[in-house]
Amino acid sequence: MTETTRPVDDAAVKAAALTLEQQASLTSGEDVWHFQGIEEAGIAPVMVSDGPHGLRREPDDNQMNIGNSAPATCFPPAVTLACTWDTDLLRRVGEALGRETRAAGVSVLLGPGVNIKRHPLCGRNFEYFSEDPFLAGRLGAAYVHGVQSQGVGTSVKHFAANNQETDRQQVSADIDERTLREIYLAAFEHIVKDARPATVMAAYNKINGTYATENTWLLTQVLRGEWGFEGVVMSDWVAVVDRVRAFAAGTDVEMPPTHSDELIVRAVEAGTVDAEQLQAAAARVIRLADATADARDEPGTFDEDTHHRIAREAAAAGAVLLKNDGDLLPLNPDGDHRIAVIGEFARTPRYQGAGSSQVVPTRLENALDAITALAGVDRVSFAPGFSLDEDADDESRAALTAEAVRAAREAEVAVLFLGLPPTAESEGFDRTDFELPADQILLLEAVHQVNRRTVVVLSNGSAVSVAPWQAHAPALLEAWLGGQAGGPAVADLLFGLANPTGRLAETIPLRLQDAPSYLFFPGGERRVRYGEGVYVGYRHHDTLDRPVAYPFGHGLSYTTFELGDVGVVPAGDNAFDVTVPVANTGDRSGAQIVQVYVRDLESSIDRPLHELKGFAKVHLAPGETGSARVHLDERAFAFWSIAENRWKIEPGQAEIRVGFSSRDIRARQLVDLTGNTVAPALDAMSTLDEWLADPVGAQLMGPVIAPYLEPGEGKPENIREVLGAMPLTKIANFGGPLTHDHVDALVAEHRKATTSIA
Amino acid sequence: MTETTRPVDDAAVKAAALTLEQQASLTSGEDVWHFQGIEEAGIAPVMVSDGPHGLRREPDDNQMNIGNSAPATCFPPAVTLACTWDTDLLRRVGEALGRETRAAGVSVLLGPGVNIKRHPLCGRNFEYFSEDPFLAGRLGAAYVHGVQSQGVGTSVKHFAANNQETDRQQVSADIDERTLREIYLAAFEHIVKDARPATVMAAYNKINGTYATENTWLLTQVLRGEWGFEGVVMSDWVAVVDRVRAFAAGTDVEMPPTHSDELIVRAVEAGTVDAEQLQAAAARVIRLADATADARDEPGTFDEDTHHRIAREAAAAGAVLLKNDGDLLPLNPDGDHRIAVIGEFARTPRYQGAGSSQVVPTRLENALDAITALAGVDRVSFAPGFSLDEDADDESRAALTAEAVRAAREAEVAVLFLGLPPTAESEGFDRTDFELPADQILLLEAVHQVNRRTVVVLSNGSAVSVAPWQAHAPALLEAWLGGQAGGPAVADLLFGLANPTGRLAETIPLRLQDAPSYLFFPGGERRVRYGEGVYVGYRHHDTLDRPVAYPFGHGLSYTTFELGDVGVVPAGDNAFDVTVPVANTGDRSGAQIVQVYVRDLESSIDRPLHELKGFAKVHLAPGETGSARVHLDERAFAFWSIAENRWKIEPGQAEIRVGFSSRDIRARQLVDLTGNTVAPALDAMSTLDEWLADPVGAQLMGPVIAPYLEPGEGKPENIREVLGAMPLTKIANFGGPLTHDHVDALVAEHRKATTSIA
Repeated sequence: MTETTRPVDDAAVKAAALTLEQQASLTSGEDVWHFQGIEEAGIAPVMVSDGPHGLRREPDDNQMNIGNSAPATCFPPAVTLACTWDTDLLRRVGEALGRETRAAGVSVLLGPGVNIKRHPLCGRNFEYFSEDPFLAGRLGAAYVHGVQSQGVGTSVKHFAANNQETDRQQVSADIDERTLREIYLAAFEHIVKDARPATVMAAYNKINGTYATENTWLLTQVLRGEWGFEGVVMSDWVAVVDRVRAFAAGTDVEMPPTHSDELIVRAVEAGTVDAEQLQAAAARVIRLADATADARDEPGTFDEDTHHRIAREAAAAGAVLLKNDGDLLPLNPDGDHRIAVIGEFARTPRYQGAGSSQVVPTRLENALDAITALAGVDRVSFAPGFSLDEDADDESRAALTAEAVRAAREAEVAVLFLGLPPTAESEGFDRTDFELPADQILLLEAVHQVNRRTVVVLSNGSAVSVAPWQAHAPALLEAWLGGQAGGPAVADLLFGLANPTGRLAETIPLRLQDAPSYLFFPGGERRVRYGEGVYVGYRHHDTLDRPVAYPFGHGLSYTTFELGDVGVVPAGDNAFDVTVPVANTGDRSGAQIVQVYVRDLESSIDRPLHELKGFAKVHLAPGETGSARVHLDERAFAFWSIAENRWKIEPGQAEIRVGFSSRDIRARQLVDLTGNTVAPALDAMSTLDEWLADPVGAQLMGPVIAPYLEPGEGKPENIREVLGAMPLTKIANFGGPLTHDHVDALVAEHRKATTSIA
Repeated sequence: MTETTRPVDDAAVKAAALTLEQQASLTSGEDVWHFQGIEEAGIAPVMVSDGPHGLRREPDDNQMNIGNSAPATCFPPAVTLACTWDTDLLRRVGEALGRETRAAGVSVLLGPGVNIKRHPLCGRNFEYFSEDPFLAGRLGAAYVHGVQSQGVGTSVKHFAANNQETDRQQVSADIDERTLREIYLAAFEHIVKDARPATVMAAYNKINGTYATENTWLLTQVLRGEWGFEGVVMSDWVAVVDRVRAFAAGTDVEMPPTHSDELIVRAVEAGTVDAEQLQAAAARVIRLADATADARDEPGTFDEDTHHRIAREAAAAGAVLLKNDGDLLPLNPDGDHRIAVIGEFARTPRYQGAGSSQVVPTRLENALDAITALAGVDRVSFAPGFSLDEDADDESRAALTAEAVRAAREAEVAVLFLGLPPTAESEGFDRTDFELPADQILLLEAVHQVNRRTVVVLSNGSAVSVAPWQAHAPALLEAWLGGQAGGPAVADLLFGLANPTGRLAETIPLRLQDAPSYLFFPGGERRVRYGEGVYVGYRHHDTLDRPVAYPFGHGLSYTTFELGDVGVVPAGDNAFDVTVPVANTGDRSGAQIVQVYVRDLESSIDRPLHELKGFAKVHLAPGETGSARVHLDERAFAFWSIAENRWKIEPGQAEIRVGFSSRDIRARQLVDLTGNTVAPALDAMSTLDEWLADPVGAQLMGPVIAPYLEPGEGKPENIREVLGAMPLTKIANFGGPLTHDHVDALVAEHRKATTSIA
């Protein structure tokens, strides 16, 4: 699509009327938080602010001063939102975020973060959704729809392959194109196509040797050309290294400004940057400023209580009940048993991660207060159990443990709030440890020894090791980072006022060494090779049939569900509508995530055992039966063909697998794919097998090859296998009835026959 | 090195005297088994024949007719030779092969095959030595030394990265350069430098998109340029696709001839091929013809009995006693217990693989006859147990099992000969199954049920699954493919006339899915991505601490050994002489393989847990103490730095680990490496951490950065970690005391200070 074929829009007209210098001025920021505007041309300076799970509106336009931002609702970070598997909820959270963004006079919220969780120790995993691109893409799109419904923009980030913090400013993520397309770009692709985000943020790192900000293939060929992105590409903060190269590659706006706009002017004058490209970029910035004008003119307000309630709903929906031996949970809120609440995190919640996403919340509620409110002050005792002060001495640690053990001994149930220390999870560096702090594990063991009814509630922004200690936790609730209302959300779940519906958006491996990228993370010498390829998360564990602590998609409920038979109706070429009845067979209301995986049964390349291609959250009253409906489009069955540079579907059978986790498949249905392949042209380098697999080729080749396949003295027993893999021309090389002239004639005959058919 | 600086040799003079057409004629074969000669110029047509574990001299010069070759001693294939870990024995086998080659009038034996066993199912693994390049390189060099000591040449093959048979004619092995250098080229490199093979054979496949035969980087830059190879590069049979491209890249000779030499003449005339290159290639062919002239003039003879004895010695030395519960082995040759010999392989040995290496043996001895000879006919019963006829019906199978069970019940010990069927392992296609045939496993279970004293002897050319059934095999002898004298060799081991000294040259994984390349083998779309990188074999299993059935280097003996303390003496920069006392603490003579692994404790890139860098086979009488001596050179500690394009050793500690397998490390010693690094030049894109790690940089940077690191409101708690990873210029981008001018000044000051030091 060229500019001239597009309908004339105001922005394009305005851009064309600008001087070269004015156009160039639009391609970098005014300060840390604003694009440049041009007052005389009526172009407003768009303000942007950090997200993604709350608005981090800085008071100072010229500084990055994390922790001093204006209060805003701190929703649960992406790690928790993702485990809701609830696109409706994500949209509502997005709407709330959009309202707050608009109310603050901000035009673009810098989120969502949709990078794939490649390794459990990535320091920024808490800002990302999932190890699965389908789930990340659906959730990210819902979020973008929600925010942008309020007249403000989003910035989908970090584009692309920013899957670690270690050396993020310079590291090259070395990834083969199939893996990029199927795993690391797929969520971005879906969001761009489905939700049309206002902006995309180019990442710090390099991809296959070229900075994301300077990556023409990524920003111009794929993002704009193939996906049709029409918004603004801005750089991550200080990501631009070479301003002109970055602009030429497709980074419209450098944020914050660190290079003179004069460089762009000179590049256009010198012909290294196309004048039309500059004008188009300027038009995009103008279009964004115009599109967000209403929001700036009428910022509106929002209701803190309402948003706090949404935050609480999301926290409850995102917590995952990993384990519940003997139905230890829910606790009875009206019972008379005493509850020992143990763990500093009950009083001092870990509710978000550190770095640019760190929001100053409008309020902050902890679990201890919420539990006390629900059960009554007489029934609840509290002991911090451990200290967050890393310099605490052994004596004070021992005293804390002893106090906690006393409390646990005197109670009928002990609820331990364990988790990662707040310093462990941050933008800017990766985690160094997969384990919980050792003193917390010792505390758990000591508590469990005196009270077998021990519940563990975890606070952490990415998978932690549970295998070494979970035998001491008959019930285990992974609450992740709950945002400002995480405390009461957990209390609701503990007492059954809410029924857990969260399901894991990331596998919890048994050991760190089981992480698929363990051997290749975080690389060195300024590069990281994605050796594991497409086998990320459950794609790795399930294909290798390796044990995990908890599989992708796993999560318990206080009720039970059953699936009926899978109904499949064709809906076009290689597309199907899938319907599965699901029944609540227990005695509480609840929701189940019906997960639809696709397994390709016939493939010419290696593929994961199965891949998530649909899901539906079904809410059901006790005894109620509903149904999950999922549409599987062509893409659900495709792989990225490097040879053909396209999404390819091969004819043959695929299996639709429906279940409650990637390891809990309860119903299956085979479908036939017609594929989107075209018959390959056979030539002299095509193998005998390829000739014989083709109807016309087989007809031509059969009589010629017969003498070769007859058994004979000195011939290998497996002559068919050996010859099958050989190109015709090489069979001819060895001499015998098939000569090179013969091969040439066969190729010509085949071409003639197949051309006349077509 | 250019031609003009080299001493003038006869071959160069002869080549220069030839016409262009004559020179070109030397760059392809005369027929399937001969190079071209030029009678009038006194250049003999060199004859070559298949190897590697025996001479496959074809009767017909114009045909490839496997199975009809002239009889020759069939030594054990490489899989078995490798498990001897015995370079002296490999040299003697090589000498014998050289004698037979010479006696047959052949000038070049096409071997050894030194490709790395990347995956257990590679159809040609039986022709290759090991999963470890150090072991493959040492054994390959000994073989080449041995063969070439007889005045004939070798052809080290298949150069390079021909690690599968599937699509071998066209597949591209996509491998990052570090993995290529450290794993897939390393054995070739050692052999070329140490043993100066007469020829190297360019493989069928592509490497990173370019055919090996057309790969200038591989053949000219690395092989000739870096390694100093002066011999002839010939193509694998019909490997050349584009004759001119192949020649230009460094394939001196196309075998067999499939393109006209006229192409080369025309290419020289057209200037696409350098005339000097053609002359140099012709000179290399002439040099080979001249160097092998004595052998052709005086072919000599060899003694079949002697060679058969060497084959027997090698078969015994290469068998690996995997398991020997309750010291079930050795059997007592003079005892009175009855022995049931079960399994068709006892009578019909599997002693080599199929394909171009398939030798017609001078004689063939089976294990049944040898056992009978040792124990006496009255003590031995035989039942075939299973049929090699794949079409056998259920009834006949049941009868075979019943007969075997009867024999086992009546005997004091049952020796089962199990293994892969002969059709399973061949050049030209990969194996499809990791398991033994199901009927053999059922047979074993049935036999073990009636006789707990069950010994299993395995015949197979590459790892097979043992985990599912080995509980039924209290003793397990992996005899691999034993060559023509494998039968008596096994008998000797069973009765303790020989003491097992073989150690695994390849890991036996628990499950096929545990193979490091499982997810990436054999690829598709004409490419195979080596995703597992350098983590091949034990490098993968040990680094991930994953269970295996039997680890690399494992093997039992009928006696016991103990290691003393490791003595380490520095022997130059980053080089050491290692001495370890080893004692035979049992009551039989035996030999132990003392294995020296190196573990790098401080590295800027990911490295395997440890890597084999030395070994010594120590033969000891009962009670005797000897010592293993191993020299570790610089290379033992180096990794291939992609960033610096060289072998790099970083300063710091390394651990020398000595043991009896990769999982049985018995002694350790730390050493300090001075490294071969040079201080990096610090610039504006160097990170703060890099500045602070450098003494001069730290001095300059300390005062400047101090204000940034002071805690303050709104500053992240981990400001040190966050800033540490940032390039100076990007810290300056954010504003604050460190300006870009400041950064420029610091870089200049640092350059000045470090230059003046140097």
